[in-house]
Amino acid sequence: MAHPIIFDTDPGVDDAQAIAIALAHPDIDLLGMTTTFGNVNITTATHNALLLAELADRQIPVAQGAAAPLVKPRHPAPTHIHGDNGLGNIALPEVQGRADPRSAAQFIVDTVNARPGEVSLVAVGPLGNLAAALQLDPALIDKVKQVIVMGGSIREGGNVTPVAEANIFNDPHAAARVLTAGWPLVMVGLDVTHRCVLGPDQMARIEAGQGRLGQVLAGSYAFYRDFYQQMLDIDGCCPHDSCALAWLVRPELFTTQRGHLGVATLGLAEGQTLFAPQGRGFIEERWSRTPLADVCLGVDGDAVVEWITDTLA
Amino acid sequence: MAHPIIFDTDPGVDDAQAIAIALAHPDIDLLGMTTTFGNVNITTATHNALLLAELADRQIPVAQGAAAPLVKPRHPAPTHIHGDNGLGNIALPEVQGRADPRSAAQFIVDTVNARPGEVSLVAVGPLGNLAAALQLDPALIDKVKQVIVMGGSIREGGNVTPVAEANIFNDPHAAARVLTAGWPLVMVGLDVTHRCVLGPDQMARIEAGQGRLGQVLAGSYAFYRDFYQQMLDIDGCCPHDSCALAWLVRPELFTTQRGHLGVATLGLAEGQTLFAPQGRGFIEERWSRTPLADVCLGVDGDAVVEWITDTLA
Repeated sequence: MAHPIIFDTDPGVDDAQAIAIALAHPDIDLLGMTTTFGNVNITTATHNALLLAELADRQIPVAQGAAAPLVKPRHPAPTHIHGDNGLGNIALPEVQGRADPRSAAQFIVDTVNARPGEVSLVAVGPLGNLAAALQLDPALIDKVKQVIVMGGSIREGGNVTPVAEANIFNDPHAAARVLTAGWPLVMVGLDVTHRCVLGPDQMARIEAGQGRLGQVLAGSYAFYRDFYQQMLDIDGCCPHDSCALAWLVRPELFTTQRGHLGVATLGLAEGQTLFAPQGRGFIEERWSRTPLADVCLGVDGDAVVEWITDTLA
Repeated sequence: MAHPIIFDTDPGVDDAQAIAIALAHPDIDLLGMTTTFGNVNITTATHNALLLAELADRQIPVAQGAAAPLVKPRHPAPTHIHGDNGLGNIALPEVQGRADPRSAAQFIVDTVNARPGEVSLVAVGPLGNLAAALQLDPALIDKVKQVIVMGGSIREGGNVTPVAEANIFNDPHAAARVLTAGWPLVMVGLDVTHRCVLGPDQMARIEAGQGRLGQVLAGSYAFYRDFYQQMLDIDGCCPHDSCALAWLVRPELFTTQRGHLGVATLGLAEGQTLFAPQGRGFIEERWSRTPLADVCLGVDGDAVVEWITDTLA
């Protein structure tokens, strides 16, 4: 049986690939997308989510959400990574559909409550929409099947600061709420996504396999790849957001550890995820007071990239 | 020519071994010890520094320093690791000598100014004395030969919190001052000290080689080893503080990276060291505004343990 999911996203080049997977994979039932600021501004995020579904000839509800962080001021969108339009500045067709009238948070609350215990939330942007959903209905923690978060870094270091990953840094207060809420949660962070590198050959197979959508994925990838080449000296890209879906469908490709998560919300380490493995004592209890969660610390990166490519080729 | 050093210390079991090395190694000229709270209270630290020198039949000035952190309240001393007396609760002989009348900070200022460009500061406890010395004489940054700090962690995670190493956590404000002062500095942190494990056989050789001092080193080690066995499931101990001296005398056993250091002084990540490699861009400049320092990220752990053992056997 396919996994019913809500995909919470800020598309974004790697988001676009993950959306394509969510639309294409037979084991995933995409109930809807909720959008957030992050890689792009909120209107661009909603536009791109609608567009990507239309390019796959699918009708998927898209509910718009957070335009800004809960507490801190908004940082400018990283247009040098994802382009001004979030998809590498390639020319894009017109969008036909419209967003759902509900807020992202209300859409999550309604959808989860309609199928208690069944729906997985897969969140690959800043976590404001999930925090807002918990504000509307704190009992969600007992009604979702699981929450899969692409974000954070335990041992790998950060990508926007020496210690902070972008999704968490973009709204650390929302992340603190979501990662410590006590629902079944797995964190898919840079510790594993940086082990997955998708190269040009694999992208060519994806382009060939996805029709009109494939052209957008490949065109935006070329822009994104320049960034990786310049910044990290990698010929290819880390498919961060697709890794969250790989965990949903193929968790056996990952190794996880269970423990207590925390998020630094202020100071030099703002946006850092802290992980205290279960049973490991520290001098104060505050690091092990939060509910338990699972954190991905290892991955068969080649197998994940192969899974992504096979799904879309 | 031997390296003239001031050894800033909170002895402490692993400090005691490092002090024995500083006293014994022909390439090290121990000009004096300065003491700080940390592993033990300040009076115990001073007592132990005097005692360890006397057990080696040496007259070394010992100047007492910080009894508490610069800003935050004092945490209780970790008596479960080092014992109530800092040396594993073994019976200790009487101390004959007395501490230098000067404060640790004044001793550092006087000693460095007497030999500008020659003296290395090797600091293996919380960094309050070095911060206080910089307060008395900020121009020290151009007069020390180098500063070697045992403390911090970049990729390894912490030992008192999920991200913070004990020396930095015990006085993060002092550490922020010292690690970003702009003097020639190398950080020898858990990324390398956790790769060095000194086992019972090596300790037996050290005990045999160090006379009365060897009995104290071996007796305290037995207590410390229990902690490692229970907490980390290692049969042996990480000789953290001796690693700083290994770097002084045998830097070729380590690999370092140059970059910008910072210290989180508040919040959940309090006491964490942050490292931005030189030339790596981050979204804000604040992470790469601090002066450059060197950070040990790799080590031949077996060779360091062999160097320690050969020095003392």
